[in-house]
Amino acid sequence: MHTETLDYTDADIVCEAFVAYIKTKGRTRPCVLIGHSWAGQTDADRQTASKIAQLGYVGFALDIYGKGTRGHASGDNSALIQPFLDDRALLRRRLVAGLAAAKAHPVVDSNRIGAVGFCFGGLCVLDLARAGTASVGLRGVVSVHGIFAPPELGRQEKITAKVLALHGYDDPLATPQNLLDFAREMSTAAADWQVHVYGNTMHSFTSPTANQPDKGLMYNADAERRSWVAIQNFFEELFAPSEL
Amino acid sequence: MHTETLDYTDADIVCEAFVAYIKTKGRTRPCVLIGHSWAGQTDADRQTASKIAQLGYVGFALDIYGKGTRGHASGDNSALIQPFLDDRALLRRRLVAGLAAAKAHPVVDSNRIGAVGFCFGGLCVLDLARAGTASVGLRGVVSVHGIFAPPELGRQEKITAKVLALHGYDDPLATPQNLLDFAREMSTAAADWQVHVYGNTMHSFTSPTANQPDKGLMYNADAERRSWVAIQNFFEELFAPSEL
Repeated sequence: MHTETLDYTDADIVCEAFVAYIKTKGRTRPCVLIGHSWAGQTDADRQTASKIAQLGYVGFALDIYGKGTRGHASGDNSALIQPFLDDRALLRRRLVAGLAAAKAHPVVDSNRIGAVGFCFGGLCVLDLARAGTASVGLRGVVSVHGIFAPPELGRQEKITAKVLALHGYDDPLATPQNLLDFAREMSTAAADWQVHVYGNTMHSFTSPTANQPDKGLMYNADAERRSWVAIQNFFEELFAPSEL
Repeated sequence: MHTETLDYTDADIVCEAFVAYIKTKGRTRPCVLIGHSWAGQTDADRQTASKIAQLGYVGFALDIYGKGTRGHASGDNSALIQPFLDDRALLRRRLVAGLAAAKAHPVVDSNRIGAVGFCFGGLCVLDLARAGTASVGLRGVVSVHGIFAPPELGRQEKITAKVLALHGYDDPLATPQNLLDFAREMSTAAADWQVHVYGNTMHSFTSPTANQPDKGLMYNADAERRSWVAIQNFFEELFAPSEL
């Protein structure tokens, strides 16, 4: 397993991706971007990149906040996330910069890019799918306990990336009404979309340390296991030769 | 591949199951019941039984209408289905009779039973899960473009079988409101439940001949392929040694 950090820029902001892949000779391969939670890029994201690499893809953990700007894995990161929630055009630009950096990587097949994101990262990968022609090469995205709220950046054009959301039904950050709104948004945009709804499952279900059921945040081993199966299936379908 | 028909009874009604399995020596194995659509047991159900057998389980296509009572694969079968929709206690009894017949089969592990059903059969397998102590041995069920409406048979006890519904979001027989109601019902019953929602997908998405979009009935190759992957994953989890 080869791992490296990679600097890329969005205007004057330097970001630091973490990249993982298994070295083979002279062959590009699909790449999966990893969108981090409000804590910024953490060990969990880098581990996800390595798990993605084990599947034969390039794992590319994004850095939305910028190099050196990291939050606390289990603290309050409102100050970090808020500027991007307030300015979704900024968020989109930052994400597209990450996508461009991945596409430029020598081992990456720039026409076979996917993305998976957790919590805030779920919103990020959905926003990347919503970016339309700005995200050429993006084949599909998986939002894992992500936030559904669409950006207000004018009329949504057709979404060509396939979309899968893995969703805990008791997630207070993505309510049943949000789910219905999301279904309508995706259908209107003619996306190839799916949602896997997990019952009795709260926000942050993939985070082993999440343990605040009163706040709707709780690890759930069943949902985590099922979500990883779904992620693998999704990218298998996405990157299958028959889909090219 | 060994196939056979098997008669079983519910009171004075004789039913004829279709059973498929690969013969191996002296070992019982998990069994998957197959619930048919309003057309009654058809070739499609018997083919599903054979596909289940290829996975190493016993495929057991139920016969809810009774031996020789078969509808038309693409006609109006209201007269056949209606008595069971009107009398869900009868339906439950008929289903439990099928479950008992499967459990009594010599190659079946009576403690590892699953079920998958299509359209009306989806309602059937959900009703089997809702039968509580009457369906001991039932570990999990998959409803495929099934109807969600619960029976009105008194207070629902805890549902111990795992539940997965594979659902087309544009299915007119299972509306977004039905989906929310189902989520509430399953959560209240403390079921381990999941719903996979497929966007831009109507009722009967697994039926290659379904082609009445004006009525909300339409084959969908993507949803069919994804549903078969989900079904396999579900039974793999259900029957895994670690789950026993």
